[in-house]
Amino acid sequence: MPVFSRLVRFLAKDGHIYYGDAILPAGISDISKASRAHVIQGDIFGRHDVTSQVAEVKMLLAPLARRDIRTVRCLGLNYEQHAKESNLPIPKFPVLFYKPVTSITGPLDEIPVAPIAQEGEGLDYECELVVVIGKEARDVPESQALDYVLGYAVGNDVSHRDWQLKRGGGQWGLGKGFDGWAPFGPGIVSSNLIHNPNSLNISTKLNGKIVQSSSTRDMIFGVAKTISFLSQGTTLLPGDLIFTGTPQGVGMGRQPALWLREGDQVEVSLEGVGSCVNKVTFEKPSSKL
Amino acid sequence: MPVFSRLVRFLAKDGHIYYGDAILPAGISDISKASRAHVIQGDIFGRHDVTSQVAEVKMLLAPLARRDIRTVRCLGLNYEQHAKESNLPIPKFPVLFYKPVTSITGPLDEIPVAPIAQEGEGLDYECELVVVIGKEARDVPESQALDYVLGYAVGNDVSHRDWQLKRGGGQWGLGKGFDGWAPFGPGIVSSNLIHNPNSLNISTKLNGKIVQSSSTRDMIFGVAKTISFLSQGTTLLPGDLIFTGTPQGVGMGRQPALWLREGDQVEVSLEGVGSCVNKVTFEKPSSKL
Repeated sequence: MPVFSRLVRFLAKDGHIYYGDAILPAGISDISKASRAHVIQGDIFGRHDVTSQVAEVKMLLAPLARRDIRTVRCLGLNYEQHAKESNLPIPKFPVLFYKPVTSITGPLDEIPVAPIAQEGEGLDYECELVVVIGKEARDVPESQALDYVLGYAVGNDVSHRDWQLKRGGGQWGLGKGFDGWAPFGPGIVSSNLIHNPNSLNISTKLNGKIVQSSSTRDMIFGVAKTISFLSQGTTLLPGDLIFTGTPQGVGMGRQPALWLREGDQVEVSLEGVGSCVNKVTFEKPSSKL
Repeated sequence: MPVFSRLVRFLAKDGHIYYGDAILPAGISDISKASRAHVIQGDIFGRHDVTSQVAEVKMLLAPLARRDIRTVRCLGLNYEQHAKESNLPIPKFPVLFYKPVTSITGPLDEIPVAPIAQEGEGLDYECELVVVIGKEARDVPESQALDYVLGYAVGNDVSHRDWQLKRGGGQWGLGKGFDGWAPFGPGIVSSNLIHNPNSLNISTKLNGKIVQSSSTRDMIFGVAKTISFLSQGTTLLPGDLIFTGTPQGVGMGRQPALWLREGDQVEVSLEGVGSCVNKVTFEKPSSKL
């Protein structure tokens, strides 16, 4: 079991990058408000200690270093109302796809839109509960599945609908896998603190206006069932992430469609965890190509 | 540039696991015939040396340790005749999906079939050229793409057609991602030795009988074009693998369909590289579930 409460990774004012246990003001649960943290030493997935050393947060980073992240799994169509707005049937089994580790960024990083992703249309947001696996899980029954969770975060499964749905031969990975298209954070709340991950409000604000607002209660496959299912015949590793799907309200589901544009600010929030606030930034064409 | 010619990872007769540069008998290019290797010290993706120390091979392992593998990308429908046998149109862009790192195993390991993958039908083989990325690649032009390759191996994109096509909500990852469903090896032939990866014979034998036989010349998107395309907006990392698709002759494309059964021996071979020989082994139900 982790000994931290709210794991953060951050650039400190002393210039170092630390893992830490966030110190929050009384009555505040949004990790993005943390300005100080107890430094953590050791292996996040193994033996580690929360020390008495306090460091000042200059900027929160992705709560796991890239080297500590293994496979990034994502579920599609895992909220009933979202499946309906997508005009797709309710799935019988979890719909699984993947993102590369290079898609992961931090809670305050920009979302870079490369020239290839400026083609066509359909740049979209998806707020999601992110499960962080803490120990090896294979053939885990649903009743024990949450024991394998290190903690929970919120993430944005940034998507380009044309590349995802029209140009990818039906496979979603390409249109969801560009660099920086999976901001997550602002920290990882220990599973010691969140006993029921399927009871949390989840939402997205686009330029300050609420565009998604739901509860993880509405998932078709809850967190325990998802972990149990994915672990059948497949070993989940410490440092695996599971993006558990998004509720209704994505840009694709609206009339007219609402696509992200350069300079837009997207904020995804999860109750008891906090928010990631990311700005959409269009890249210039590469001089190499 | 790598300093090795044929990278192997192996359990030695002295009980240690080494990276090595395979020593082959004169006139033999199949790495699986290597019984000795020069031990390699250092970082395979950075500074490393082929030493004069020779170790005896007891068993070849996956040519990269799991920790050294990052994202595993795969292409679908990348040979024209295979797209036709699948009754699917020739893709306009590479069709990208992923496997988890836990699917990777060695050239002589068993292919475990978990109970979930014994449901339904459609256990199938796919011989593929595997590209190993050697250095970070982002927005790489096709003319320079092969400079980013560490080397080439052969792999088997083991697939369960029911889970891939009928039960996965259209996403292929689940039916191709079980533990041990991506044997690869027998070693990695340096890109110094293979100048044109799209000129190699590739084949599969099932229980000694040829079932796939083609050339990487018939790829729709060749290796250089594939790397260039995948690197647009996405950083490929050292240790990323790309399974580049399979030619015609898979079990699904036959009349009647030819599915793998318990005890079958599948051998995938690539000219200039060698063979992986893997036995299909059905797992008993887990006592945990």
